Amino acid sequence: MEFLKPYVTQIETALQQFELPDNPKNLYDPLHYFLQLGGKRTRPVLALLACELFNSEYQKALPAAMSVELFHNFTLIHDDIMDEAPLRRGMATVHEKWNSNIAILSGDVLFVEAYKQLMQYEANVLKELMNVFSQTAIEVCEGQQMDMDFESSDNVTISAYIEMIRLKTSVLLGAALKMGAIVGGAGQSDADHLYQFGENIGIAFQLQDDYLDLYADPDKFGKQVGGDILSNKKTFLWLTAVSCCNNEQIERFEVMKNTTDKEDKISLAKALFNELDIPLLTKKEMDKFYIKAMEALRNVSIPSENKQVLEELAKYLIIRDK
Amino acid sequence: MEFLKPYVTQIETALQQFELPDNPKNLYDPLHYFLQLGGKRTRPVLALLACELFNSEYQKALPAAMSVELFHNFTLIHDDIMDEAPLRRGMATVHEKWNSNIAILSGDVLFVEAYKQLMQYEANVLKELMNVFSQTAIEVCEGQQMDMDFESSDNVTISAYIEMIRLKTSVLLGAALKMGAIVGGAGQSDADHLYQFGENIGIAFQLQDDYLDLYADPDKFGKQVGGDILSNKKTFLWLTAVSCCNNEQIERFEVMKNTTDKEDKISLAKALFNELDIPLLTKKEMDKFYIKAMEALRNVSIPSENKQVLEELAKYLIIRDK
Repeated sequence: MEFLKPYVTQIETALQQFELPDNPKNLYDPLHYFLQLGGKRTRPVLALLACELFNSEYQKALPAAMSVELFHNFTLIHDDIMDEAPLRRGMATVHEKWNSNIAILSGDVLFVEAYKQLMQYEANVLKELMNVFSQTAIEVCEGQQMDMDFESSDNVTISAYIEMIRLKTSVLLGAALKMGAIVGGAGQSDADHLYQFGENIGIAFQLQDDYLDLYADPDKFGKQVGGDILSNKKTFLWLTAVSCCNNEQIERFEVMKNTTDKEDKISLAKALFNELDIPLLTKKEMDKFYIKAMEALRNVSIPSENKQVLEELAKYLIIRDK
Repeated sequence: MEFLKPYVTQIETALQQFELPDNPKNLYDPLHYFLQLGGKRTRPVLALLACELFNSEYQKALPAAMSVELFHNFTLIHDDIMDEAPLRRGMATVHEKWNSNIAILSGDVLFVEAYKQLMQYEANVLKELMNVFSQTAIEVCEGQQMDMDFESSDNVTISAYIEMIRLKTSVLLGAALKMGAIVGGAGQSDADHLYQFGENIGIAFQLQDDYLDLYADPDKFGKQVGGDILSNKKTFLWLTAVSCCNNEQIERFEVMKNTTDKEDKISLAKALFNELDIPLLTKKEMDKFYIKAMEALRNVSIPSENKQVLEELAKYLIIRDK
């Protein structure tokens, strides 16, 4: 999105200017490496946009935005160890390029750096930001644990799944907005409504991610289509399908689950999911959270024309049929 | 030490009253488990004692003390993964009892809880505490990285080793005292002198730990005597010996290094170290830091009779010949 570019540039500049010691090299080299791998920088941009709703000097929110981005990168470094992921943004993960111990420790130090960013605010603002940030950090850890627990569980409910994605990914979008709003001088109620906007857009976005895994245009989709299916991942599509199956369909579901040929497996899943109307059900669920997000945004007490930037961003993030 | 008991009891009570959610169980059960494994609680007690030097209501320092203790336990959980330690205080470590992923994540969440404790202070005090705490947290990570790097390095200098133990263990003693002092209302200079007291006592204590590994009375020593020697660990004794050896002694050092029989190896090391006067050199080095600590304590601007408690504690921690 063209209008986001100046904000993204500010974040990239702040990341380049972000100073870390040189030694111990095995502690800091991984951080220099990981932070320049790039990314959409969605979270820190949200912090800047939220600040600007209340204060034209949105650069004031840069330390808060950096805090959120550094925290996000810390979680990626640790999550990559847990998921045994070899690649991140097409490049070797920290535990692959160095080792797990170095990934644990450099992650830890990045987490402190995220907190340290907040020290640039005066004491009362710092305390308000710390409150949101610490609560969010705990929730993100809880979401990651739920995600790991779900791998070995056969009793994952759809509501538990939604709660997991809310904690693992959405609360940090909410927190980014809320922290930006606090720096901008927003009142409690406006800051909370922006949090809810981010939280609900985050859930809709994650559901869309589940949907696109199977239904994306392979030419436009960056990843392998059907990756979640191939790893039997309990996504929203999967769990909804399980909950809708009749006895005959459950048998076909089991056959699909145990199919090893990749193309066959994806075809079987797609046929079954289509029959069960999973695409429509997923879009309806996405819509539910999209609408909640828009309601929350409407409740922010600023002129509606100023909200257009966040409305546009939501429309850009979430593809809707109607 | 009898007079410390009431302080230790307060810490134990605070730890028992410290509430964590029940779920996700795999995130919080390890923390409930680990925090009740016990320990001397030296760091949080130092925070309470430092506060009491300036303010009779030393309980005000309980959240700061808890913060330091929770942080210390977070580092132990992560260090145990890195060191592949099966036991901690005679019980299974978190990554052994659960797994490494759970140990990483429950450690992360404990780190946030350590920060959250500081939220109980009013904004200006919070900011001062955050400053000390974050800086210390980074230094502890740096120390742990240096320690890991030293394992595979043949060029560890004695001064780098001292810097490593300063960062890995001593700065947290200093921080505990400084944070307690800040809560008690101490001025900057007094808080800094107490930090230096803790930092130097910490180095002396760690050097003593190196000494006792080989020279402790086996009946009184909790661990296997000579454990460091058996794992060819580059302690102060080892590095000092290497730096003092003549050519003939270097050869015997190499023989000792490659000896596999445990008793033989320890005997060879002891003979060589005694010949090189390593016990005396170690005690001299300990003394140097002990004296620095006492100088720092003398510089704290409170009546000298009030400092007796910290003097006693230092004497209790560090055994001196004279």
